[in-house]
Amino acid sequence: MSGIIDLGSDEYFMGQALREARKAYAATEVPIGCVIVREGKIISRAWNQVETLRDATAHAEMLALTAAQNAIGDWRLEKCTLYVTKEPCPMCAGAIVHCRPERVVFGCGDPKAGAAGGWINLLNSCPPLNHRCEVVSGVMGEECLGLVQGFFREARERKKAGEEKPRPPGFPTDM
Amino acid sequence: MSGIIDLGSDEYFMGQALREARKAYAATEVPIGCVIVREGKIISRAWNQVETLRDATAHAEMLALTAAQNAIGDWRLEKCTLYVTKEPCPMCAGAIVHCRPERVVFGCGDPKAGAAGGWINLLNSCPPLNHRCEVVSGVMGEECLGLVQGFFREARERKKAGEEKPRPPGFPTDM
Repeated sequence: MSGIIDLGSDEYFMGQALREARKAYAATEVPIGCVIVREGKIISRAWNQVETLRDATAHAEMLALTAAQNAIGDWRLEKCTLYVTKEPCPMCAGAIVHCRPERVVFGCGDPKAGAAGGWINLLNSCPPLNHRCEVVSGVMGEECLGLVQGFFREARERKKAGEEKPRPPGFPTDM
Repeated sequence: MSGIIDLGSDEYFMGQALREARKAYAATEVPIGCVIVREGKIISRAWNQVETLRDATAHAEMLALTAAQNAIGDWRLEKCTLYVTKEPCPMCAGAIVHCRPERVVFGCGDPKAGAAGGWINLLNSCPPLNHRCEVVSGVMGEECLGLVQGFFREARERKKAGEEKPRPPGFPTDM
């Protein structure tokens, strides 16, 4: 069955999130991408635009959540799965819980500051919050991590060459 | 000195955040308001617009943070204080840390799900996060709490009368 792509698989949709992450890379943004899927269809796509929008809250997940809500005209993302290439930070995890998707699938983990089990878990083990998501981790994790690592390796090289610009907050400075 | 208003005090700016909260109340939104102040000047104002924008991430703090970043053309809210009538939730607290204001002043606490010390504290006691804010709580706390309590009292009365519409997530259903 090699060579056949399952268009409904987690790997397929994570591949689409990686496409978004590569757009971020091309724009010299930390390469993180996100897609939101409802009943097998992508309803929103976004890449990290912190530098582009000069807005430290413009993480891929936040932009994709707002776009998905616009797409369906409701803040309840029922029957939805959010795919993101890196484990969400506390801001994004908090936003995800508010929007209530059923599942969250991420690529590489963030043991230092991730909020989907890496550092803390806001997605499915917090009694005070009013929604719990099923969480799947490690889907295409190596590709997702490799992209971020490559970005920071290049950034270090630029820094050595005296071309570094300050990095936005909310992202790992090294992975 | 009664009757004299100190235009640089925390109480004055919290009064301005309460003005925003009352706009939310008038729009049948959970009445939470926020202002961001830099060097004694208000650079952004916002009220909770979850229902209005059909966006569960459109909390007062999120809208005020984005507007403040637009106002100064930078994602670093240096020398800024954020005033909000209710203790921030995990999403908003995570966003605040990304934007790096020096101080956060809130009115009433949220012991069930607040992320500035009520339930957890993301603002100044999380080693993995790359910024810590000074936090001041309880400024005009009774007025802030009273507004929210009045809103939910009215909502219960509407519900009894069969006029209730579903409440957005991310807010206390009762205080």
